[in-house]
Amino acid sequence: MKQNKKMVDAITSRDADFAQWYTDLCLKAELMDYSDVKGFIIYRPYGYAIWEGIQQDLDRRLKATGHQNVYMPLVIPESLFQKEKDHVEGFAPETAIVTTTGVEDLAERLIIRPTSETLFCTHYQKVVNSYRDLPKMYNQWCSVVRWEKTTRPFLRGKEFLWQEGHTVHASEAEARKETLDILDIYRDLGKDLLAIPFVTGKKTEKEKFAGAVDTYSIEALMHDGQALQSGTTHYFGQEFAKAFDIKFQDENNQQQLAYQTSWGVSTRLIGAVIMVHGDDEGLVLPPYVAPTQVVIIPIQSQKIEVQQATQKIFDELKAAGFRVSVDDSNKSPGWKFAEYEMKGVPVRIEVGPRDLEQGHVTLVTRYNREKHQINLDEITQKMPDILKNMHDALYQKALEFVENNTYQAKTYDEFKAYIKKGGYVAMSISGEEAELMIKKDTTATARVLPFDQTLITELCPVTHKVATQTVWFARAY
Amino acid sequence: MKQNKKMVDAITSRDADFAQWYTDLCLKAELMDYSDVKGFIIYRPYGYAIWEGIQQDLDRRLKATGHQNVYMPLVIPESLFQKEKDHVEGFAPETAIVTTTGVEDLAERLIIRPTSETLFCTHYQKVVNSYRDLPKMYNQWCSVVRWEKTTRPFLRGKEFLWQEGHTVHASEAEARKETLDILDIYRDLGKDLLAIPFVTGKKTEKEKFAGAVDTYSIEALMHDGQALQSGTTHYFGQEFAKAFDIKFQDENNQQQLAYQTSWGVSTRLIGAVIMVHGDDEGLVLPPYVAPTQVVIIPIQSQKIEVQQATQKIFDELKAAGFRVSVDDSNKSPGWKFAEYEMKGVPVRIEVGPRDLEQGHVTLVTRYNREKHQINLDEITQKMPDILKNMHDALYQKALEFVENNTYQAKTYDEFKAYIKKGGYVAMSISGEEAELMIKKDTTATARVLPFDQTLITELCPVTHKVATQTVWFARAY
Repeated sequence: MKQNKKMVDAITSRDADFAQWYTDLCLKAELMDYSDVKGFIIYRPYGYAIWEGIQQDLDRRLKATGHQNVYMPLVIPESLFQKEKDHVEGFAPETAIVTTTGVEDLAERLIIRPTSETLFCTHYQKVVNSYRDLPKMYNQWCSVVRWEKTTRPFLRGKEFLWQEGHTVHASEAEARKETLDILDIYRDLGKDLLAIPFVTGKKTEKEKFAGAVDTYSIEALMHDGQALQSGTTHYFGQEFAKAFDIKFQDENNQQQLAYQTSWGVSTRLIGAVIMVHGDDEGLVLPPYVAPTQVVIIPIQSQKIEVQQATQKIFDELKAAGFRVSVDDSNKSPGWKFAEYEMKGVPVRIEVGPRDLEQGHVTLVTRYNREKHQINLDEITQKMPDILKNMHDALYQKALEFVENNTYQAKTYDEFKAYIKKGGYVAMSISGEEAELMIKKDTTATARVLPFDQTLITELCPVTHKVATQTVWFARAY
Repeated sequence: MKQNKKMVDAITSRDADFAQWYTDLCLKAELMDYSDVKGFIIYRPYGYAIWEGIQQDLDRRLKATGHQNVYMPLVIPESLFQKEKDHVEGFAPETAIVTTTGVEDLAERLIIRPTSETLFCTHYQKVVNSYRDLPKMYNQWCSVVRWEKTTRPFLRGKEFLWQEGHTVHASEAEARKETLDILDIYRDLGKDLLAIPFVTGKKTEKEKFAGAVDTYSIEALMHDGQALQSGTTHYFGQEFAKAFDIKFQDENNQQQLAYQTSWGVSTRLIGAVIMVHGDDEGLVLPPYVAPTQVVIIPIQSQKIEVQQATQKIFDELKAAGFRVSVDDSNKSPGWKFAEYEMKGVPVRIEVGPRDLEQGHVTLVTRYNREKHQINLDEITQKMPDILKNMHDALYQKALEFVENNTYQAKTYDEFKAYIKKGGYVAMSISGEEAELMIKKDTTATARVLPFDQTLITELCPVTHKVATQTVWFARAY
């Protein structure tokens, strides 16, 4: 009964308290639970299944473009970690360090990987000898640990799950192309799987990754108007190659330093899905990433015709490749409706005796909660379109939300007013000095330099110096 | 050229030095490399792809039987780890402990999971309330850390990759059934995917898992006559449930302690595949787990008819779902033959102009190195049978090896002579006293109590007391 009660309680409304709504939803949709160590969460089956859906889709895209999976050690010797100066400065304050086995202290302290550039570089130094060995395009799926102070489920944890790609190339052009190709793959993952229109662009110098020449990012806009950096790709130039001595013999038998990239997306994408699509009834999952796409709920399941129709619909949908389940537990239909709405299952099919007499069932699409009567024999045939239309509608809605919440500011007052409303504000600034003032005054941060760098104003509205770059700002997670 | 040289060097012969042969093969087949921290290895793309093949196959079997994937934290608070007495005694000497972030020491030391019983139990305590919540059958894919002193690639590492299943049930019968069902799934994985005939049975009291009531094991027999424990399943009874207070309300509203199991296989399976099937030319991969099933090598690839035939064969095999690749690099055919034999690719197709004139190509099966001429138009159609016959032959060969190297001992002298030859020796013993003497005298350990417990002798040949159990012994990794 404890279970029943928990589900029937409504969650906090999004507009009343977005942060509380988010936490309520994570727990009540049974995506995660807290562990005994702050910042380390438990991915429950439903939450982990969403991650598996993301993994499968992205892994397929990466393999199709020539990337190979590997697995590097969990730990990095402290001396190795310190080899690339900028990199270690960026990560040193937030590492977990193994110092002992309990029986004896270690000769050298071992850092649990916060990211694995140093491990990949050490390996690449050994296996890259000739231009014939290039490119090397490796990826790994693993967890990493960063000792964050403030943590929130999926968004920022001391441990999180991710993929980290690390590639080595013979030329700058090829490495730069890889950095942008992966950005495209991430954007496509958003569009095709998560129904999220990511804004893409380059990070400012201030916001780029520790050790990178250039960092690119995919950014999603949450329902509360804050941005969420959802993935990054980095062009390293030859900086890591210098620090780790990654050289190859070119076609003219000359020794050359290699060019590198790295890139990653994490379980933070689950947070993005929640905050872009969710509503006051709970999670709304885009159909292609949903662990269960269709749930069938028999009404008056003691009736034989209801049981038979339920089984028939289930068998047909399953045979056609849809992820489908039946809930024939003895909970009330109303309780089940609320539960699967909380869990964001895209399609609910209610199989009741009265509908069946007319040869149809009731189909409810989660995202707009619309009810349709649908002929029993047409369910499977119509399902691809139902899911596709739902996916497209979710994407379109999210896209319109971005468009309706993106502004251009020509004065600093305008900028401040827009930032207060929430969303992206584009402004042309003089550089880091302006960026720092904006952060101090408004807490907004530079999200990306859009690829179209047309200037909005000649002078920077903040510093009144010459504007050199157009930046999209937002408050961000 | 460095690369070329490395591959052409032969590896140590199996019979000359099995341990060296193994290490040579792991490195030269590019399965792994050493990292800067002893006992932590790098899984290179080819080695990791074998693990991915195992994961996919087993994950499918587990999901088909109602198991769900989750992800638990990497770290366990020291106090939590110590909650189940037997369990902590078994693992305490071999843990890696996080004590500091570099900036400040942790209030409580965190143990990197050597296994996750304590984490699963803590979670189950929270989510199991009623018999309606049972069973819970969770699994996770992750890496674990155990501070082993002696390490060998894939066989024993400070870190290894595995899956760990943890289940909770309402009755002893159901939990015991799960323990044996998973043992069957592991045995089937061996038979269907790895072409390894695992010997299965129960572990002796001495060899069982820390905290288990009963442990079962799958054991593989290596080419050198030593056994390799390749996976285990544990029935926990209510011991962990007591320690962690995992209770549920039964159908009569009574509070009951739950029954639990856990089970796992690891990247050690890769070691088993190497040591069961490999030969002096290198790795021999069973076809269904091989990352590349067919490699096509064009001979005189400048000739247009060779290029066209190569492309045609590749396209057809790929369209039919086989894992196929082409090596049209400018290395010599002989070098390529040696390389793909080292890597254990099941089928090599040589596409040469002279063969093509006759309308056929040369197909070489790795495991027996037999050459066949095969009609160009029949390759794809015949490939399923070629792979199936190869798989069956590998399994049959390994099965005969087990049968030919399994003995029964009626005296301790017989036992010692058989153990010296290598393989399994079945003997009926009085109990742990005999087990300890045998280990001391011969280094052989109890592998399993076979399910058929017919006694071979009435008295134990070692202690001359009444024999109570028949045990299969072997020297083991």
